[in-house]
Amino acid sequence: MEKRYIGIDLGGTNIAAGIVTGMGELLASKSVPTALPASREELEKRMAVLCLDLCRENGYGITDISALGIGVPGSVDGQEGTVLRVVNLGIDDWHLREAMEKLLGIPVFVENDANAAIIAEAVAGCAKGVRDALIVTLGTGVGGGALVDGKVYAGANYNGLEVGHTVIRMGGRLCNCGRRGCFERYASATALIADTRRAMRRHPESLMNSMCPDISKAGPKLVFDAAKAGDRTAAGVVDRYIRYLATGLVNLINIFQPEVLCLGGGISNQGQHLLDLLRPLIDAEDFARTSKKRCKIKIATFRNDAGIIGAALVGAYND
Amino acid sequence: MEKRYIGIDLGGTNIAAGIVTGMGELLASKSVPTALPASREELEKRMAVLCLDLCRENGYGITDISALGIGVPGSVDGQEGTVLRVVNLGIDDWHLREAMEKLLGIPVFVENDANAAIIAEAVAGCAKGVRDALIVTLGTGVGGGALVDGKVYAGANYNGLEVGHTVIRMGGRLCNCGRRGCFERYASATALIADTRRAMRRHPESLMNSMCPDISKAGPKLVFDAAKAGDRTAAGVVDRYIRYLATGLVNLINIFQPEVLCLGGGISNQGQHLLDLLRPLIDAEDFARTSKKRCKIKIATFRNDAGIIGAALVGAYND
Repeated sequence: MEKRYIGIDLGGTNIAAGIVTGMGELLASKSVPTALPASREELEKRMAVLCLDLCRENGYGITDISALGIGVPGSVDGQEGTVLRVVNLGIDDWHLREAMEKLLGIPVFVENDANAAIIAEAVAGCAKGVRDALIVTLGTGVGGGALVDGKVYAGANYNGLEVGHTVIRMGGRLCNCGRRGCFERYASATALIADTRRAMRRHPESLMNSMCPDISKAGPKLVFDAAKAGDRTAAGVVDRYIRYLATGLVNLINIFQPEVLCLGGGISNQGQHLLDLLRPLIDAEDFARTSKKRCKIKIATFRNDAGIIGAALVGAYND
Repeated sequence: MEKRYIGIDLGGTNIAAGIVTGMGELLASKSVPTALPASREELEKRMAVLCLDLCRENGYGITDISALGIGVPGSVDGQEGTVLRVVNLGIDDWHLREAMEKLLGIPVFVENDANAAIIAEAVAGCAKGVRDALIVTLGTGVGGGALVDGKVYAGANYNGLEVGHTVIRMGGRLCNCGRRGCFERYASATALIADTRRAMRRHPESLMNSMCPDISKAGPKLVFDAAKAGDRTAAGVVDRYIRYLATGLVNLINIFQPEVLCLGGGISNQGQHLLDLLRPLIDAEDFARTSKKRCKIKIATFRNDAGIIGAALVGAYND
């Protein structure tokens, strides 16, 4: 039988788990509330019960699962399987692998969620087989994960790849990290949504207001669609957004020159259109634009359920 | 006998070579003009003759030399010993290791000059034994070199670590790479010198003008010295410079979280004073400022003759 993995996406609101093939196909999933505050022992038990329920409901025994991968939004020592810190969960120095292996009796791997995402792309996604790859996730914030020579690069203290917290505009928008002008404050889905809603309020005549009369429901799809339909206000927002995004991405390209740069997160649902908008700016600014070998920019393969699939494929990667 | 290495710093103006111990001690050096334009064969011969002369004049035979390292200001495939491109020399796809090994009969290693610098620091300098280290050189431009897990990281196309060409101020000063607001345009010695001279012209009352009546001779030492002596104009220039520098350095720390970040190039001659000025800004903005393990910022050990010693220690590193 083809191997099966379980991936757990441990979030502050929900714990989501899924059974996934080595190719990244999600066969079944299930989630339970994280129900914070919770001790680490309670979280461990909740995850273990979720895995056992998920298996039973889908006709598997836990021993049919080759490995469990857990993706955590914080700093993780993947080799030790230790969570050093997750601000959202209020937990430090959590020996999660050890605890879960005791509870379930199968191999367990723990990884930061963005690192899990780039591993997933390298195992079965848009960077399959690539050894130097980067992912930038454009969601609530801007996250990053990197593979260097086939291994996760997380920095000496496992706090690296905070690409969202690199300043692209000194003295600019205040970030909750304490800096001003962070990439994340301009290129996240959150920033695009705020910029869109501000433009809608300033320009009542914009097509966006007729397409979506409730401004509080305006999202990235609206502004990209309205810009395509010729709305000037929307086009201005998209144009500025793309310039911000390209600035930060070229910074990362000039530093890493990865073979593949994957774009994930909500904004990446714009797909090829997003790549088409970015291309001329990147071609004009990439330091290696005349090199024979250019960095390929791709839309991440795993977008829906990326957290679960990414975590599961960390298991497959290490299996 | 202790091992001896030769390092060559291949510049656009001079070819400088030195005999260096495995500890990075420079025992003897010699240089000849690069004399451009020159074919690659002419450059190879010039370098070989320089090595042989250097040995003879100092009582060595070429076979007393364990390895030759060549540092090149361009993109280099260090594993193959091939120079992919050096804009200043107008050369592409140069199989330099192969050619020099034929001419000299000793092992030859070729590396980008910034990568050579970080290798030198890791072999015998301020990052001795460190496996994740970064160097940022503050000279004519701003250069970068990285070790990841003990190996040079240069990107999939050997054009990575162009840290000087990351935008910290969108829409800012025009860079010769074509972008606006590059780190290099604010944090290089060149930028500091230009900012200093501009301030001296605007503020004739500044102490700097009495310390150095010929504005065209004003350099980094002058502005730092005048600021220490209480000159407000100089203090303003230094303050702005440190804010620019800290912004770019924290960007790199947030991405790499190296164990050690070395500062090289002319500005690093300011030594501990430079670190003291940077410290509060970095402590306020490093994303991992509450982590148990912080990135250590150090002044590079090899500053004078860094090019020669760095290249020689690439030989020692690979020997």
